[in-house]
Amino acid sequence: MLKTRNIKLTLEYDGTNYCGWQVQNHPASKSLRRRKKSIQEVLEKALSKILRKKVATIVSGRTDAGVHALGQVANFKTNSKIPPVNLQNAINSFLPDDISVIAAQEVPSDFHSRFDAKTKIYRYNIINRPFPAALLRNQVLFHPYPLDFKRMQQEARVLEGRHNFKSFQASEKRQKSTVRTIKRISVAKKGDLIYIDIEGSGFLYNMVRNIVGTLIEVGRGKFPKGCLKTILRSRNRKLAGPTAPARGLCLLAVNY
Amino acid sequence: MLKTRNIKLTLEYDGTNYCGWQVQNHPASKSLRRRKKSIQEVLEKALSKILRKKVATIVSGRTDAGVHALGQVANFKTNSKIPPVNLQNAINSFLPDDISVIAAQEVPSDFHSRFDAKTKIYRYNIINRPFPAALLRNQVLFHPYPLDFKRMQQEARVLEGRHNFKSFQASEKRQKSTVRTIKRISVAKKGDLIYIDIEGSGFLYNMVRNIVGTLIEVGRGKFPKGCLKTILRSRNRKLAGPTAPARGLCLLAVNY
Repeated sequence: MLKTRNIKLTLEYDGTNYCGWQVQNHPASKSLRRRKKSIQEVLEKALSKILRKKVATIVSGRTDAGVHALGQVANFKTNSKIPPVNLQNAINSFLPDDISVIAAQEVPSDFHSRFDAKTKIYRYNIINRPFPAALLRNQVLFHPYPLDFKRMQQEARVLEGRHNFKSFQASEKRQKSTVRTIKRISVAKKGDLIYIDIEGSGFLYNMVRNIVGTLIEVGRGKFPKGCLKTILRSRNRKLAGPTAPARGLCLLAVNY
Repeated sequence: MLKTRNIKLTLEYDGTNYCGWQVQNHPASKSLRRRKKSIQEVLEKALSKILRKKVATIVSGRTDAGVHALGQVANFKTNSKIPPVNLQNAINSFLPDDISVIAAQEVPSDFHSRFDAKTKIYRYNIINRPFPAALLRNQVLFHPYPLDFKRMQQEARVLEGRHNFKSFQASEKRQKSTVRTIKRISVAKKGDLIYIDIEGSGFLYNMVRNIVGTLIEVGRGKFPKGCLKTILRSRNRKLAGPTAPARGLCLLAVNY
């Protein structure tokens, strides 16, 4: 009998030309124009070609249309005996150049990319100067008005720890429990770039982008001092800032 | 009478979707498929729209198809009284998002982007790991085999100073004098990325990419120790390495 192996892939991708990790159901848009591919379907198609059978992947968590990854994790089961490094090279040769497998390893049969994920680290990139960035245009949010970086740093701190993040929940997608834990949030600056790193054990839909959108309002001076505490406690989405665009967001790593 | 002003623009662009700074004459390819636009024509079209007359720009030097810039410089004459910062915003609003004016200033009427350039700094980016980069795919050369970075650093030094760079001249474009001065060449490493920075008062056509192609051969151990001195002295293009691809090259700055 063939042994079933469990293979863990670490993926880097540019989400610009995809509808997200998974196919999203927008029946209305289907008829209007050809929908974009999903990263999952492109990856599974490459795997199926190499392994000569249909392959289903399990991902640590979906990313939205336009969101990037430097360390997304997905796993799949296979009877194939191909060593992981050969598998990695084979998959990369079948993938388009905006998706890359940066690691492949055999893991215990009970490893599950989603259930076993301890924390995820997201980075949001903002370019803060009066003129747009040409080279990084798809990977940063261009914000032309001055942002008070120190203030963003100070206000962000209140979000660390276990809280009810209902104020940062996507209005269209309600989840049962809105309690989550942010292990670490940091706001850093390098030249014209502002990076917001958020590490958490789990996130509500659009939670990271809603936090970033709120921090941008803080940086612009639209909210008074101590506002983030007020917004967090209010459990009212309407008090928080808008959802920051997808393009500035990148899944840096998933920790197991 | 209207005063003629001289405006200096500093430009950032992603060269991926352009045929280079200037339209290149390849009559054969014209009929085969629609040619790519040049950065110059896109910029001049934007300027003409704003200034309501044909505008001719002078550039510090052309960049090839696929080569990027973070600090290209071009200037043009105009009778318009629009302040430089307003002009910058107006131009950016007419430019596609892969070209951006990052500075605009009025300069003395005799300022000439090309003749007055003292040095130019180019950077070549190599990603050196066994698997390709998805996010930086258009801005780095992917080199999967190990490169001996220290050796590249050591050999590169011999190129600093005033030399006859005939060995690094493009074989198809012969220039009268092949003597140029490299003020500084450095090879640096950050994680999987290797950066080669070259500052010079002027370069032969494809000289930077030919030097990089040669240094990659050095890093791969294809050439013996001291090879760069031998190649430089030989004045023979055939002894040097191949021309490195355009995508890894970026014009960082022009100094006046």
